[in-house]
Amino acid sequence: MASTILSRRDLEFLLYEWLDVTALTSRERFREHSRETFDAVLELSAEIATEHFAPHNKKADANEPVMLPDGTVEVVDEVARALKVFADAGLTAAQFDEEIGGMQLPAVLARASMCWFQAANAGTSSYPLLTVGNANLLVEYGTPEQVDQWVRPMLEGRFFGTMCLSETGAGSSLADITTRALPRDDGTYRVSGTKMWISGGDHGLSENIVHLVLAKVPGGGPGVKGISLLVVPKFLADGTRNDVTLVGLNHKMGNRGTTNTVLAFGDGTHPVDGEPGAVGYLVGERHRGLAYMFHMMNEARVGVGFLATALGYTGYLKAVEYAKSRTQGRPPAAKDPAARPVRLIEHADVRRMLLAQKSYVEGALALGLYCSLLIDEQETAATDDDRERAGVLLDVLTPIAKSWPAQWCLEANSLAIQVHGGYGYTRDYDVEQLYRDNRLNQIHEGTHGIQGLDLLGRKVVADGGAGLRLLVDTIGATVARAETGGPDLVEYATAVAAATRRLVDVTKILWSAGDPTTTLANSSVYLEATGHVVVAWMWLEQLLAVGAKEGAFYDGKRQAARYFLRYELPRTTAQFDLLASLDRTTLDTEPDWF
Amino acid sequence: MASTILSRRDLEFLLYEWLDVTALTSRERFREHSRETFDAVLELSAEIATEHFAPHNKKADANEPVMLPDGTVEVVDEVARALKVFADAGLTAAQFDEEIGGMQLPAVLARASMCWFQAANAGTSSYPLLTVGNANLLVEYGTPEQVDQWVRPMLEGRFFGTMCLSETGAGSSLADITTRALPRDDGTYRVSGTKMWISGGDHGLSENIVHLVLAKVPGGGPGVKGISLLVVPKFLADGTRNDVTLVGLNHKMGNRGTTNTVLAFGDGTHPVDGEPGAVGYLVGERHRGLAYMFHMMNEARVGVGFLATALGYTGYLKAVEYAKSRTQGRPPAAKDPAARPVRLIEHADVRRMLLAQKSYVEGALALGLYCSLLIDEQETAATDDDRERAGVLLDVLTPIAKSWPAQWCLEANSLAIQVHGGYGYTRDYDVEQLYRDNRLNQIHEGTHGIQGLDLLGRKVVADGGAGLRLLVDTIGATVARAETGGPDLVEYATAVAAATRRLVDVTKILWSAGDPTTTLANSSVYLEATGHVVVAWMWLEQLLAVGAKEGAFYDGKRQAARYFLRYELPRTTAQFDLLASLDRTTLDTEPDWF
Repeated sequence: MASTILSRRDLEFLLYEWLDVTALTSRERFREHSRETFDAVLELSAEIATEHFAPHNKKADANEPVMLPDGTVEVVDEVARALKVFADAGLTAAQFDEEIGGMQLPAVLARASMCWFQAANAGTSSYPLLTVGNANLLVEYGTPEQVDQWVRPMLEGRFFGTMCLSETGAGSSLADITTRALPRDDGTYRVSGTKMWISGGDHGLSENIVHLVLAKVPGGGPGVKGISLLVVPKFLADGTRNDVTLVGLNHKMGNRGTTNTVLAFGDGTHPVDGEPGAVGYLVGERHRGLAYMFHMMNEARVGVGFLATALGYTGYLKAVEYAKSRTQGRPPAAKDPAARPVRLIEHADVRRMLLAQKSYVEGALALGLYCSLLIDEQETAATDDDRERAGVLLDVLTPIAKSWPAQWCLEANSLAIQVHGGYGYTRDYDVEQLYRDNRLNQIHEGTHGIQGLDLLGRKVVADGGAGLRLLVDTIGATVARAETGGPDLVEYATAVAAATRRLVDVTKILWSAGDPTTTLANSSVYLEATGHVVVAWMWLEQLLAVGAKEGAFYDGKRQAARYFLRYELPRTTAQFDLLASLDRTTLDTEPDWF
Repeated sequence: MASTILSRRDLEFLLYEWLDVTALTSRERFREHSRETFDAVLELSAEIATEHFAPHNKKADANEPVMLPDGTVEVVDEVARALKVFADAGLTAAQFDEEIGGMQLPAVLARASMCWFQAANAGTSSYPLLTVGNANLLVEYGTPEQVDQWVRPMLEGRFFGTMCLSETGAGSSLADITTRALPRDDGTYRVSGTKMWISGGDHGLSENIVHLVLAKVPGGGPGVKGISLLVVPKFLADGTRNDVTLVGLNHKMGNRGTTNTVLAFGDGTHPVDGEPGAVGYLVGERHRGLAYMFHMMNEARVGVGFLATALGYTGYLKAVEYAKSRTQGRPPAAKDPAARPVRLIEHADVRRMLLAQKSYVEGALALGLYCSLLIDEQETAATDDDRERAGVLLDVLTPIAKSWPAQWCLEANSLAIQVHGGYGYTRDYDVEQLYRDNRLNQIHEGTHGIQGLDLLGRKVVADGGAGLRLLVDTIGATVARAETGGPDLVEYATAVAAATRRLVDVTKILWSAGDPTTTLANSSVYLEATGHVVVAWMWLEQLLAVGAKEGAFYDGKRQAARYFLRYELPRTTAQFDLLASLDRTTLDTEPDWF
């Protein structure tokens, strides 16, 4: 029976038939790799995800982490066991350099591998995902000593990592963090403050926890300028307990398998050498912490998009399985009331719900893998120009790669429930948990609204509009190839081309409004419309890879593309019309009118 | 501080300033009533909902009903206490005849009253809601003896009622139920079969539980024709335990406060007189059970719409309160990074999310109350013609009054979470529960897809299209009044008129497709587009009631209407375009393409 976690066939199509990732093996960095090593990693990931991650997904949801009276955290046993298998297989280190124990795998393969774990068990997958993000940042900006001290044990699976940005009063607005780091004569820092929403912030799953903490070091100026980045481990190198203390756990609607914590740094619970503050080590230069963090944010945001996609994808597969096995009712044309009931999938409206899910989750997966390949291109493309272009395109696509799956793969999960009917609303089936888990993804790593401001306020105008121009040119190249195809391709290419022109026109109108308040008033609408154009482009790309190939798999791709182009893309017309009108409804509303 | 359960001000506006419900008191049935008695009921409802229902909403969610080893059900204590206060206040009997102990209140007031309880605590409110539906049906179709025996104790709050339609293999398709009722010589029946999804199916909250059961009595023909309706009480009149046995409880994502059960009828656990089957009493005539049930279905479906609306409304009020108290970030035009953070509500995107919620929940509440007034009109309007017209309009509006709030007030709950950011995703706040609770409403009392088939397949074509014609004429009358208003009204009236014309044209195109399969292929899209047109009309109606009145409340109405007309109604263009194209994408998809 086919897996209901992810589709190997679709991954193979996207990676090999569309993105041709095997071509990467001709590059110096990936020369040890081949189609065989890629396949082996994907095969291994599917196997470990299926055998060690999926089985405890419901159990970890029903038995969320508990803070015990002694201040430690209890997590269901299966989590540690699964993570040990994961780390022992070397998967934490998938995309890292061989010289520090990595597989030196392309990012696009590492992401595809991780997607299996995200789909099988969002909660358990977060620990290695956060650890990888943490390690990536330290490799980029840390000293060789910091890499040896903290990254190597993380890649071995002995230490886990976190990102500590938010505070109780500062979530979207990092300018307002109050955690402080004071320099000491020995070059270390002492960190004091409380951090909120820290996933993986405390647990007994690893020997140590490496926190990357944003804190203000005096002298940097107001707002975000004073923010620095520090490594603050739970245990110092000599085993001394650092003054990092679990204050409490957050109890969430979903994503319950991941501990989510409030952490006190330097509150005196575990004083070190009788001095106040948790011991921290500066990463890179003082006052540049936010820039370091934001450099990694692209990857973190693409990672959130993958999580949303993975949850949507597995829900879709479960809905397909249910719709093919459950019988209920008869089609409208059935005349004989005594006729046997048909399978759910025979009903047009059920097929509509399945096509919608398919178009969302396969479109989102395509976008995530495309962005992941851009990460590889940014690092390993042949010329400076190619690397820079990849970086610019990744920048402009990132808010969409984060927000679009978070919105539409959640909708896919809602439709998966709907296909299941009342059963889907019960905890006996898997889909209600996926829906709860997925709702997080519009919130963390920058809310939906923040992504809209990032896209319209920064990404499309940066560098004189270079990002948008590059996006439009890249879409244009796809359209040009599609325009020489069959009638369907021409129909879709024409629609994508028109929507892209509209996007350009509307962006100009918005930025000629004269003041940023008016320009940005409907940036969420802009984000959503642009997202639909981008995903329509992803479907056009997939159709070109499908070409004239025959078989049910390719027919399914053609039909999902048709669904997206006919049912989904036309939504953007009303959105662009609204944006073009520079509507001031949200601005002209007084708080006391609510 | 204003209530965050419901808005008294908005209810007063809708009931008195818009619908002029006080005019009902000139009718014979309501002659004992007045604005004062109406206000007293609403006041009492707000008070009991606030003091007795809201406080245990979270507790009942966190401690869902448990089936004990002895087969009984444990429910948190507060539920029984709240329901006693509710019944003692006479609210179960609000809309029933005085002669059987009722208040003889108009349906529109009874619904407004119930809405307070649905918003305060969906789980607890379901018990009286189901009981009222059950009692309504028995009053309409039962014998005077049945009314005395079962209805009176229900109205006193001593007995509770259920509706037993679905079975494990027959949810949307009632033609396939297998529960059987066999007649006995004494005029009673013996009922055997298993019923699924029975809310309030077992508990110790009342002295008795009165089940209304759909079952097949031999001789009625295949499909739905043999279906009859029976009263099957948990305890017979003489106190004998009837053979109705709790098999198990369903464990749901939300709406956990209501027991939801699998019930076995006549499985021999509690045999009566040594004979097989649970004792049942026929309601009305044999083989007409489905017609009786469907007669009541309009009210049940409007009731589901109210539940969705109530959950959306309370979430909206909580989001407003949060957005007015929490500070975070600075607007785009702020230049000084050291400036103090502003309230969330100062951000345009937060106001967009609040306006969207306001336009959904106030639009849905208007529609629910409008339909409830039609129930009163159907029963008490002066002429046969008026009563019939009210019935026809109610018929065509019912699938929308059920499905539109279920879809868009759920979206409101999602936006309420989003306004709260990470906090909204935790169980420390109220909004995540509302979102879970509300997800049910697209499923029960006819799924979203079933409502689409009902609207396009039955309601708009019944009687040669009389329903749609009446709806269009009624909207047209509103448009005509609005066209003589100010520029905003004219703008909105023009938009509603255009969308209504489109609805008529598209309906004609769909029904000229030649076969029902093609006509109905996208009936869910038709349902959603029609819903938006209807709610836009509701906003136009509200604007007419607002007129030139001054003050923040009226300005808020104007702005929410503007939001709906500019941001929401334009969505329908793409939907109508798709429908007009008679798109066959969903039909031309093969099961093995998934």
